[in-house]
Amino acid sequence: MSGMWFTEEQTANIRFGCRINNILHSEKTDFQDLAVVETLQWGRMLLLDNLVMTTDKDEFVYHEMISHVAMNSHPNPKKVLVIGGGDGGTIREVVKHAKVEKAVLCEIDGQVIEASKKYFPEIASVLTGHPKVDILVADGIKHVKEAKEEYDVILVDSSEPIGPGAVLFTAEFYQAVSEALKPDGIMVAQTESPFYNQELIQTVFPTIGSIFPITKLYLASIPTYPSGLWSFTVGSKVYDPEAIEPRELAELDTKYYTPYLHKAAFALPQFVRNLTEGK
Amino acid sequence: MSGMWFTEEQTANIRFGCRINNILHSEKTDFQDLAVVETLQWGRMLLLDNLVMTTDKDEFVYHEMISHVAMNSHPNPKKVLVIGGGDGGTIREVVKHAKVEKAVLCEIDGQVIEASKKYFPEIASVLTGHPKVDILVADGIKHVKEAKEEYDVILVDSSEPIGPGAVLFTAEFYQAVSEALKPDGIMVAQTESPFYNQELIQTVFPTIGSIFPITKLYLASIPTYPSGLWSFTVGSKVYDPEAIEPRELAELDTKYYTPYLHKAAFALPQFVRNLTEGK
Amino acid sequence: MSGMWFTEEQTANIRFGCRINNILHSEKTDFQDLAVVETLQWGRMLLLDNLVMTTDKDEFVYHEMISHVAMNSHPNPKKVLVIGGGDGGTIREVVKHAKVEKAVLCEIDGQVIEASKKYFPEIASVLTGHPKVDILVADGIKHVKEAKEEYDVILVDSSEPIGPGAVLFTAEFYQAVSEALKPDGIMVAQTESPFYNQELIQTVFPTIGSIFPITKLYLASIPTYPSGLWSFTVGSKVYDPEAIEPRELAELDTKYYTPYLHKAAFALPQFVRNLTEGK
Amino acid sequence: MSGMWFTEEQTANIRFGCRINNILHSEKTDFQDLAVVETLQWGRMLLLDNLVMTTDKDEFVYHEMISHVAMNSHPNPKKVLVIGGGDGGTIREVVKHAKVEKAVLCEIDGQVIEASKKYFPEIASVLTGHPKVDILVADGIKHVKEAKEEYDVILVDSSEPIGPGAVLFTAEFYQAVSEALKPDGIMVAQTESPFYNQELIQTVFPTIGSIFPITKLYLASIPTYPSGLWSFTVGSKVYDPEAIEPRELAELDTKYYTPYLHKAAFALPQFVRNLTEGK
Repeated sequence: MSGMWFTEEQTANIRFGCRINNILHSEKTDFQDLAVVETLQWGRMLLLDNLVMTTDKDEFVYHEMISHVAMNSHPNPKKVLVIGGGDGGTIREVVKHAKVEKAVLCEIDGQVIEASKKYFPEIASVLTGHPKVDILVADGIKHVKEAKEEYDVILVDSSEPIGPGAVLFTAEFYQAVSEALKPDGIMVAQTESPFYNQELIQTVFPTIGSIFPITKLYLASIPTYPSGLWSFTVGSKVYDPEAIEPRELAELDTKYYTPYLHKAAFALPQFVRNLTEGK
Repeated sequence: MSGMWFTEEQTANIRFGCRINNILHSEKTDFQDLAVVETLQWGRMLLLDNLVMTTDKDEFVYHEMISHVAMNSHPNPKKVLVIGGGDGGTIREVVKHAKVEKAVLCEIDGQVIEASKKYFPEIASVLTGHPKVDILVADGIKHVKEAKEEYDVILVDSSEPIGPGAVLFTAEFYQAVSEALKPDGIMVAQTESPFYNQELIQTVFPTIGSIFPITKLYLASIPTYPSGLWSFTVGSKVYDPEAIEPRELAELDTKYYTPYLHKAAFALPQFVRNLTEGK
Repeated sequence: MSGMWFTEEQTANIRFGCRINNILHSEKTDFQDLAVVETLQWGRMLLLDNLVMTTDKDEFVYHEMISHVAMNSHPNPKKVLVIGGGDGGTIREVVKHAKVEKAVLCEIDGQVIEASKKYFPEIASVLTGHPKVDILVADGIKHVKEAKEEYDVILVDSSEPIGPGAVLFTAEFYQAVSEALKPDGIMVAQTESPFYNQELIQTVFPTIGSIFPITKLYLASIPTYPSGLWSFTVGSKVYDPEAIEPRELAELDTKYYTPYLHKAAFALPQFVRNLTEGK
Repeated sequence: MSGMWFTEEQTANIRFGCRINNILHSEKTDFQDLAVVETLQWGRMLLLDNLVMTTDKDEFVYHEMISHVAMNSHPNPKKVLVIGGGDGGTIREVVKHAKVEKAVLCEIDGQVIEASKKYFPEIASVLTGHPKVDILVADGIKHVKEAKEEYDVILVDSSEPIGPGAVLFTAEFYQAVSEALKPDGIMVAQTESPFYNQELIQTVFPTIGSIFPITKLYLASIPTYPSGLWSFTVGSKVYDPEAIEPRELAELDTKYYTPYLHKAAFALPQFVRNLTEGK
């Protein structure tokens, strides 16, 4: 057993250590530190600024849950935008939906895409060429501001609310997202841990709520993210993501998401409901 | 900021570190190492054999979820047994149910009870004297074997399946639990992480299933437990724990559990469902 | 074995971890964070601002080596000043020399003295009352500036060159020390690790050399200090500390220091000699 | 700054962590785990079974001190054997002595030699071809047993007294070394830390002393080895290693060793002297 470890400082007072047996890649991109390590517990792990982005073995939770909830809540998601998400996992899930005609990935850091194609071929499978997928290496907020009533679904697959991802948690950005969506569009943003980032949820949830008529938060269990519990916030113009009929949905090849879990994910623990209600 | 840390070796390849500013207590009991530390993130933390048992700030998840699911699934839980659970949190939740007439705590290690009374007064609140609560410092399996059709609800609040808690994961034990329950009794056992302890779930779930006509697994998010996701297995003779009517249930003063979450907790991620189906 | 650790960040890239089983004391004094931990390897350990100051089991190295070299180099050390050194170990060694008539301890942080008396009774043995020892809780530099040709030996037992101890590494301070010494006086200052603090040695050594006619550096092995190797710099007006005659020296009750080692400690590794020669 | 660390468990209760930014190599050889990491503090570091063997930046201490003491104590070291030492640093120092006609390296694990040639070209400089150097990939004890009065100097550059290196600390082995030496031969063995391995010194020192008429222990400061202080034991048939005349010795190109330090290294701290005297 190796004596090598990757340690994420999850908070000022919590450290999460993963034994590694290889550092496959390490570079300073124009935007951030990017590394790929081989962990014994979780397989390959993508790190940005020393924070875990995704791993071989639990990536399915995040990627399925950020995408299928919105995709299955919209009756006809033809055009979909993923902001961030350079590892390709989210857009891989998006194109599992047959109704999709065009899925656009807008990632600011092209090196994340390159490293993912090289080291995470299963996560990045649709990044190496897919008839429905367009890849833009560009600033997500800029791209969104230029789009008007263009997308059915927008998925905000951002990194932490520090560094290049910080702007993706602002009212200005959510407003732009709303304008980039069609009149019945729906968006989802990852909104951090309800245990460790309560202030963020208390800020972002009402911000999205002031822009979208239907705003709901749901949860998923991601073991390599701080606290193991992660929140996603839906902003929807028309469709209520909780109002789906599980029995009517087409089956998807998934390891975490199921239509029943989709509904259940909105049944919040009391303390999380309080966060969304400003308590 | 202190340079002192408690580090749990959650698996051979994962370390979970909590900055501490005090070690309030440390002893070798007849059964295990017992310590109480003051963490900066999670408040006071109870450790048995260097594994996190409970903390001030997230104890509510475990204690509410191990108890209220069974308690609310049974129409008339008059007599309840908690095996293990020496910190008192589970039995504190049990006596929130007005129908309870007698709640028995059977903990093998009296020092866990003493340390909890001293260092976790809010968790152990009913251990210092409560008209409905009986405390036994005794071997849980022995106690269960002596009881015949005595309890409405039995909650198996065990520590890890190593050391003194190992016997609490055997068929012999679950059979004894079944016999100690009344003909419409219901039990819940904590059954570890679906990410890290898949073999345990694959063994224990069918074992319980061979003894109880209704066997179901549900989940809760406990940030200080390995992977952050924890499973509980219900064995029930008559009542289906998923068949409750949230609207009909009396309100409880809780921070995690809600009747809606109760139902939702049984909507399993696909990979967890597979574990319970022997896939 | 406990899962509790004290970890010193010895440099930005080196961590030194000691398993602990107790935190005996922890406070914020007017000057610094002060803690006392019980380590399994080194016994009790005194920490200031999360840096190891001394431990039960290796304190003898530092305390013997900072004191006896100067004390045995001076033919008649009647009056001795220790600056810093609130744990009492250095002055305990000083009064082992029969010729001493008065030994003054000038420590800025009275809480260091109090904690040492309570938790390190063997190190602090002479602080609880000794006919030759005077204790001042005062600013060392101020005290030195007020003394004129008063001391035979001055020992600068400072903490790291950051925080309250930083001033004790300046030319202004060494000049004041020189003036506080009698015309044949001698001083010693701890001057950090020749592996990790080369710039400090390259700065401080010539600074002392510009004030004292005889300036020499010697080494001792202190396992709980960064790199395990520690330097001390002697500034002497008349007596050459290397010119002692081991056979003529009175025997001392010591665990590290011997008169032969005293001489040998000045035989520097080539790279350390280079540091003192400005290479 | 990376979040990757190599951590050596130096003792059961001490951890030494080095921040790394690369794992250059990692393999399971027939004998042990071998890895090469790039540390920020110490440059490249060679690890065997997760223990630090050598590093770019402090290798000079160990390699100079294990070799030059014996080499300069012998008036005419023509034929020299290094047992272990597959990184090449010791034999590189040996051939700095002009009188050497043949230097044999006998390393049991050929992969250590290969990895050192590839990743530590400066340490392994003479391994890639040197007129005086012979390299044997063979069992050191077997080689020694076959040699009779063949060597002037034998240097036992072993790894820890566990795993493949354990046999190199036995009486049987030292006896064989003695017989492989000429009638005026001299040997040196690394004998671990006087702080952490006192029992080993208390055992090995008298063992060597029962075989060689002159047995002495000397010390060097190696910051990446446990406790930072390391011992070497000389067994000599005729020449006293302390009796050299520093002024008469030829100059060597070294960074740690000097003839004066050679003598001084035998001036032991009192507690180490006690270890060698069976106290």
